Amino acid sequence: MYENVDNGQLKEKLIKDFPGLSKEIDGQQVYYLDSAATTLKPRQMVEAINDYYLGVSANIHRGKHFALEEVSNQYEGVRYKVANLIDCSGNEVVFLRNTTEAINLVASGLNLSKTDRVVCMAESHHSNMLPWLQAASVDYIRVTDDFCVDLEHYQSLLASKPKVVALTHCSNVTGIYIDLPLMVKMAKAAGALVVVDAAQSVPHRKLSVSELDIDFLAFSAHKMLGPTGVGVLYGKSQLLEKLTPLNLGGGVVDWVEFDAFTLRKVPHRFEAGTPNISGVLGLGASIDYLNGLGFDFIREHDKRLGRFMLEQAGKRDYLQVLNSDPDADRGAVLSFTIPKSPNLDDVARYLSDSFGIMCRNGHLCAQPYISSVSPGQVLRVSGYVYTFESDIEHFFDSLDQIVSFL
Amino acid sequence: MYENVDNGQLKEKLIKDFPGLSKEIDGQQVYYLDSAATTLKPRQMVEAINDYYLGVSANIHRGKHFALEEVSNQYEGVRYKVANLIDCSGNEVVFLRNTTEAINLVASGLNLSKTDRVVCMAESHHSNMLPWLQAASVDYIRVTDDFCVDLEHYQSLLASKPKVVALTHCSNVTGIYIDLPLMVKMAKAAGALVVVDAAQSVPHRKLSVSELDIDFLAFSAHKMLGPTGVGVLYGKSQLLEKLTPLNLGGGVVDWVEFDAFTLRKVPHRFEAGTPNISGVLGLGASIDYLNGLGFDFIREHDKRLGRFMLEQAGKRDYLQVLNSDPDADRGAVLSFTIPKSPNLDDVARYLSDSFGIMCRNGHLCAQPYISSVSPGQVLRVSGYVYTFESDIEHFFDSLDQIVSFL
Repeated sequence: MYENVDNGQLKEKLIKDFPGLSKEIDGQQVYYLDSAATTLKPRQMVEAINDYYLGVSANIHRGKHFALEEVSNQYEGVRYKVANLIDCSGNEVVFLRNTTEAINLVASGLNLSKTDRVVCMAESHHSNMLPWLQAASVDYIRVTDDFCVDLEHYQSLLASKPKVVALTHCSNVTGIYIDLPLMVKMAKAAGALVVVDAAQSVPHRKLSVSELDIDFLAFSAHKMLGPTGVGVLYGKSQLLEKLTPLNLGGGVVDWVEFDAFTLRKVPHRFEAGTPNISGVLGLGASIDYLNGLGFDFIREHDKRLGRFMLEQAGKRDYLQVLNSDPDADRGAVLSFTIPKSPNLDDVARYLSDSFGIMCRNGHLCAQPYISSVSPGQVLRVSGYVYTFESDIEHFFDSLDQIVSFL
Repeated sequence: MYENVDNGQLKEKLIKDFPGLSKEIDGQQVYYLDSAATTLKPRQMVEAINDYYLGVSANIHRGKHFALEEVSNQYEGVRYKVANLIDCSGNEVVFLRNTTEAINLVASGLNLSKTDRVVCMAESHHSNMLPWLQAASVDYIRVTDDFCVDLEHYQSLLASKPKVVALTHCSNVTGIYIDLPLMVKMAKAAGALVVVDAAQSVPHRKLSVSELDIDFLAFSAHKMLGPTGVGVLYGKSQLLEKLTPLNLGGGVVDWVEFDAFTLRKVPHRFEAGTPNISGVLGLGASIDYLNGLGFDFIREHDKRLGRFMLEQAGKRDYLQVLNSDPDADRGAVLSFTIPKSPNLDDVARYLSDSFGIMCRNGHLCAQPYISSVSPGQVLRVSGYVYTFESDIEHFFDSLDQIVSFL
């Protein structure tokens, strides 16, 4: 098992596997520190896509020819890889476009009404907030003064018997993980369905939806070395049975007459039309790659990198970290404000154009949260398996230089 | 301009560009005759995907760093390539997953009710039938005895003032094109919105949505040398403005508070979450490739191949073609039954395993239509720009051998 990404052998492998690590823009080495938005890709993932497209790139499921059956088997094989990853059955895995679509499918498919209450987290990404706002009445769990989930307030919201509790396992703003077992248990005790946005956690930590007793969970391939255009929805099979599909068309029906139709079994009824076949095959390769690195290593690396970011940030008094609690359960995502520069567009642009650093600024698709805890934009730095401590050092050294000119 | 695919120079180019044409399965050369389901891919398309994934594979739209802006510009550039292809404005092009999702978005986004009437074609693919069946009350245009659209019946249905007329430009079963200008004109005269499933036509024929005065039009990248997981919805901008999005989340909003949000301008409000970035870039390359071949050539090749299929079928009295009208406006898709073998699973399997022929059997996601005109399954053969007449000859010669043993 790998222990440290800065260890020579692994570093060499990563540089070989991820061509994006060696890119230059106008002669300037690129430092990619926006992995919470989307990750770089290993050659192995890209090869899986090429194998499909440069072979007999058949469609799946409907027909009897060899190429079609071969591709169908590969596609269904990835369903089982995902099921192994999160510990569920293959028929509980739905392939969609992204986390956003997965949450929308649940929010619309449960057929809620405005008299139904849904408990969301203030830290939610828009994708785990807007679909609920549209489908039902939403209550937000308050954030404490030190940017944590206010569990007392959560308990009081549960007393009103919400239909759904929509949790965010790891914030895309702060990189802080909630106490998922506890919060799921509390929701279950109140009789709520639990929906988890795991877009920022599944790439970093192996979890068991079965052990945690989660009802629905969503994540995206592109944040875990995989392709764009593939999201996963896990749903307990008996709940998927009751969910109304978002789209109807080819592949979702067993029988069709001019005025009636019979839906196909789950999960196929949620995958209308030709799906993102190459994307699903790419996701399979990305899971293989992550399993090859080992999730023990990945989790430890994520935590180590997160701690290192916080340490480095702590040495700079010109910035204010959103949740700087050193004891928080933290991954490799850190957001902060620079009080003397509320609009960070220029800072992000200098970091990019003068120092080759690709990181994120803005409201991070979590605008209500950012607006409530910060006077303006935040700057976010985030890493993944291929991110080295030296990249983080380069980021802060560069920022020091920019801030000295502000 | 190319004139004939069987001309030596072009044939050589196609064999070089499409590695799928040279594949063998167990030492048997593959003949791919299922292009109406999905097409083979040229290296150039795959290279566009690889350029993205093996570079700094950033996300789009939200942020200020160089890699993100570069990818955003490329992504938006493809919108304009699509707009040029079908003759509309860039902001009238929405990127979705597939044709199916595009039609579902329109059917759900128009907020119809069961008192609204929608006119569909009997020949519709399920994807241009089930969404309407769910959203409204559907009337089907009858098919004449020779498998054509019954225009008198269409006119009588229009008299009931349907809200929507959902047309299928080219049938995925018969390969026959409807008289689109006429049928659109009739619908418009009746005050209906016109939605066109162009999944089987845009890959073969250049059309102008503006000249035709079409309201919504849908097609898929994977049927035109492009990647899986990308569908296009064209909508007139003033109609897109009134359409309710199917999904909400990141990228579809300008401003979000805890209890309210402002939708972003069209078309972005329909593309929630991280889209299929690599897929859209791949679509751009596939459009470039098709433009390189030239749509005059592509259209003529499609027609020539369709005529050749029909001629070859006409020489076999053991099969019955669905619509064998030699004067019909026909593309390179042909479906037929073999009366002495109503279930064609075995035939399709022999064609595949003994002769390397990948073609389609079944109800072709147009079950009501097939059930109404055929006693059982059909066998479908379909070609595209890389299909040679010799492939069609091999298909019918092989079928002769199989049928002689039935």
